[in-house]
Amino acid sequence: MSQLARPLVRLIEAFEKLPGIGPKSAQRLTFYLLHVPQVEIEKFAEALTNLKKNTVECSTCFNVSETNPCSICEDQTRDAGIICVVEQPIDILSLERTGKYRGVYHVLHGALNPLANIGPDEIRLAQLLLRLKNQESGIKEIILATNLSMEGESTAMYIQKQISNRNTVKISRIAHGLPMGADLEYADEMTLSQALEGRREY
Amino acid sequence: MSQLARPLVRLIEAFEKLPGIGPKSAQRLTFYLLHVPQVEIEKFAEALTNLKKNTVECSTCFNVSETNPCSICEDQTRDAGIICVVEQPIDILSLERTGKYRGVYHVLHGALNPLANIGPDEIRLAQLLLRLKNQESGIKEIILATNLSMEGESTAMYIQKQISNRNTVKISRIAHGLPMGADLEYADEMTLSQALEGRREY
Repeated sequence: MSQLARPLVRLIEAFEKLPGIGPKSAQRLTFYLLHVPQVEIEKFAEALTNLKKNTVECSTCFNVSETNPCSICEDQTRDAGIICVVEQPIDILSLERTGKYRGVYHVLHGALNPLANIGPDEIRLAQLLLRLKNQESGIKEIILATNLSMEGESTAMYIQKQISNRNTVKISRIAHGLPMGADLEYADEMTLSQALEGRREY
Repeated sequence: MSQLARPLVRLIEAFEKLPGIGPKSAQRLTFYLLHVPQVEIEKFAEALTNLKKNTVECSTCFNVSETNPCSICEDQTRDAGIICVVEQPIDILSLERTGKYRGVYHVLHGALNPLANIGPDEIRLAQLLLRLKNQESGIKEIILATNLSMEGESTAMYIQKQISNRNTVKISRIAHGLPMGADLEYADEMTLSQALEGRREY
């Protein structure tokens, strides 16, 4: 890239650091931006700078928010007695999109992963247990909605044990099964056996 | 996205405007950046802001550069008598990567496309003709390296006509044919007939 102007190289390198953006995409994006008006580029840069500056973590649920408590925790129409535990703030977005959930959340900001040295102290687990302790009588259900990956499953199991040791609150796990539009022919054995196990009366 | 903090929405919208980045990728990138240290984010923002501020178009070849003339035009070891005409600055990057080309360039910043209202005046064509006129005796060859798309082909043809009307300089077009590793079985008819037509003695 010796023939390439340094301002271009710097932006290409910045793009390359993002997940899912390889060297070719980073180049394409950078050269694309050369055709974008400077005012638009400045807006983009400002949005970047302000991303973390203008947001805080909600001290109740640890969602990323402009206010503390966040808009979900503050919403009086939502059921504070149901807590849905997720790995990341982006998971809240997916759940909210369903329009089916009217409880509140707890964001762990990660999942247990011994190989990556992420233990119970690295995620917002103590905060969940503290929340349960402080609000025990008012909590009806904990929905464990961590990912259905190895890490998500073991995190859910770990939390289930921790909570059931201390509390009598109802704990549930989001359902395993076949996704919408799935073909039995192409389903893996694990998913299919879980779909059988979790069958419901029609 | 009502539950989403505005600083996140703003960055998601900025990412979505980039080519090849859909709403899901834009969300993923934005939430990923929440985990990136602010100093790294500021570097990214700065690289964006400076992309166009710290670069100019070379007044000879119209490449994007930090200096005018650009490092290629200024390089005394390169053959200023061979001009390779490309559509975009990024094409120079691809050609330089081959390590096979020691001439100079001319960037059109586009290709003729009547459907998108891009005519000869919208690309740096007059500048190429002027360059030929001013430097006529010194120029040995014009290599037309516009894309092998409809627009690139018609641009190459148009330039060829324009130049051959006025000059006697040698004009060439980059070769059509099968790419490395190609299977004849899957080659389209156009490519295959052009590969036949352009065959070389072995």
